[in-house]
Amino acid sequence: MSMDSQILGAMRRAGTGSVSGADLAQQLGVSRAAIWARIEELRKLGYEITANPHQGYRLLSTPDVLHADDLLARLPEHLTIGRDIRVFEATNSTNDVAEKLARDGVREGVVVFAEAQTRGRGRLGRTWLSPARKGLWFSVLLRPDLRPQEATQLTVASATALARAIRRQTNLIPEIKWPNDILLGGKKVAGILTELSAELDHVKYLIIGIGVDVNLTTADLPPELRKLATSLRIESGQPVPRPELAAAILQELDADYARVRAGQFEALADEWEAQCTTIGREVTIRIGDRTLRGIAEALDSEGALLLRTQHGRLERIIGGDVTVEKT
Amino acid sequence: MSMDSQILGAMRRAGTGSVSGADLAQQLGVSRAAIWARIEELRKLGYEITANPHQGYRLLSTPDVLHADDLLARLPEHLTIGRDIRVFEATNSTNDVAEKLARDGVREGVVVFAEAQTRGRGRLGRTWLSPARKGLWFSVLLRPDLRPQEATQLTVASATALARAIRRQTNLIPEIKWPNDILLGGKKVAGILTELSAELDHVKYLIIGIGVDVNLTTADLPPELRKLATSLRIESGQPVPRPELAAAILQELDADYARVRAGQFEALADEWEAQCTTIGREVTIRIGDRTLRGIAEALDSEGALLLRTQHGRLERIIGGDVTVEKT
Repeated sequence: MSMDSQILGAMRRAGTGSVSGADLAQQLGVSRAAIWARIEELRKLGYEITANPHQGYRLLSTPDVLHADDLLARLPEHLTIGRDIRVFEATNSTNDVAEKLARDGVREGVVVFAEAQTRGRGRLGRTWLSPARKGLWFSVLLRPDLRPQEATQLTVASATALARAIRRQTNLIPEIKWPNDILLGGKKVAGILTELSAELDHVKYLIIGIGVDVNLTTADLPPELRKLATSLRIESGQPVPRPELAAAILQELDADYARVRAGQFEALADEWEAQCTTIGREVTIRIGDRTLRGIAEALDSEGALLLRTQHGRLERIIGGDVTVEKT
Repeated sequence: MSMDSQILGAMRRAGTGSVSGADLAQQLGVSRAAIWARIEELRKLGYEITANPHQGYRLLSTPDVLHADDLLARLPEHLTIGRDIRVFEATNSTNDVAEKLARDGVREGVVVFAEAQTRGRGRLGRTWLSPARKGLWFSVLLRPDLRPQEATQLTVASATALARAIRRQTNLIPEIKWPNDILLGGKKVAGILTELSAELDHVKYLIIGIGVDVNLTTADLPPELRKLATSLRIESGQPVPRPELAAAILQELDADYARVRAGQFEALADEWEAQCTTIGREVTIRIGDRTLRGIAEALDSEGALLLRTQHGRLERIIGGDVTVEKT
């Protein structure tokens, strides 16, 4: 763990108390001057830190920026997801950066954040609006022991984790729209793009790209998106601190990934179904040129949607564009 | 098409006849001196070409080297697979080179050959012995409109194409071992490694890596492989010209890819089953830590193997290590 992580961690653990420079210096095995130099750097990044000659350092507030060392300091140790965090000011797409890391052999669990994406991608080659410092745009590299057709389990796990973290941090009640959208009041607030590299019978690596519209205002949304998309800020009426939310999402993702690895997908699927507004509804699904209509009945053990078509047949759906019919 | 392709194509079409330098110069829109210069270059590569002042150029023999222009000259026009051919003296793995081309947006159909691979890969991370100029080690980039679970169709199509081309060029009768080995007399002579990059519901690109043991002698095979592997040369008792075989394989691959795209997978599956020594046999299949035993009954419409287990259940198998039990 870096010095910044340890200093921020110690100040947070102290809560409204202070941490003495001498204690920090001893714990980290460096001089008090070195601690002072790091405190100055953190202040430049926007951290409000008071220094009292008798009591030491105290953290008053944290800026709404993504700082890898700070995110690491907020996470418990021994997580898989988030044990390595990299933050970019801007990148074309965090999924592309994560893919490059995957090819370079970086181990699973690395998370790539970007404050802005110049070419953020949604599903099926669509673009994903990713304005600077308004949202969380990040990708997680995993190397699960799964067959390609089981990868849907991880999209389901990501959706439950994301919904849980949003609920925990904002008290808003998200809905899940199959397969990978998180909605608030029927409008999209977050999405998941799962990409994988595989041989026919096993996944080599898998990248979960997540985009969360955190602090976008209505003015940040193009007019044509305003009926379809929203943000946590618009829905809750106040800005949501992104570092806290990011740390909460990574913890929930790690917990759900552990469940999938432990073969506990059933429990996740139940949690998913309870929040999923698609289940039990009449839907239209477009897959390429095909259009299917029917009732979304349930999720199967691999995370596919079971659709009862108009003709009474049960179809297993992996992907596609789902429209829920008005009732 | 390059000058070399056109010159070699014209000489081959002339058969035992000759092509005049003046005609070639006119067809290609260059000087006779330019044609002469290319002929000299081809001779340096090992092409035996006679030049008769009255009749012109005649191709007597072709060296056993892979020359991209020559391979292109051997293929009919309007193929998808083989419309772009790149030959490397040596590379780590042709699948890796093809993957890089895929990421750079190169269109489908490009074929990457290497005279030698320093880190040739087989399935499941195994190494693939690829000594210089002894075999065909190559990869084909495709961008099919398929879902990931349908990709098995292309492995089946590759196996039928490969078996057909080997039969055509050598009169040997190959067997297919599910999912992707070509055998002669029960020993492996060629293998296919399919790798893909996908979103959950659609393939972005797919790479078919093919390795054919063409002219390896028994001495080229490590002792521990001699009971398991063989080559076309060992089985036929004579060297097999690699450029002809390469061109034959690419044509058959293109034909079978066209069949898959046209929805004619059923016919391919029938051809595959007729040559497949796995079907109808008692087999043991290892998938990770799992071991399944049963009778390999048939191929399903997506190219998966249907296994009737000892317990009478029908299991759908995508990959794994198959051992055919002695009967």
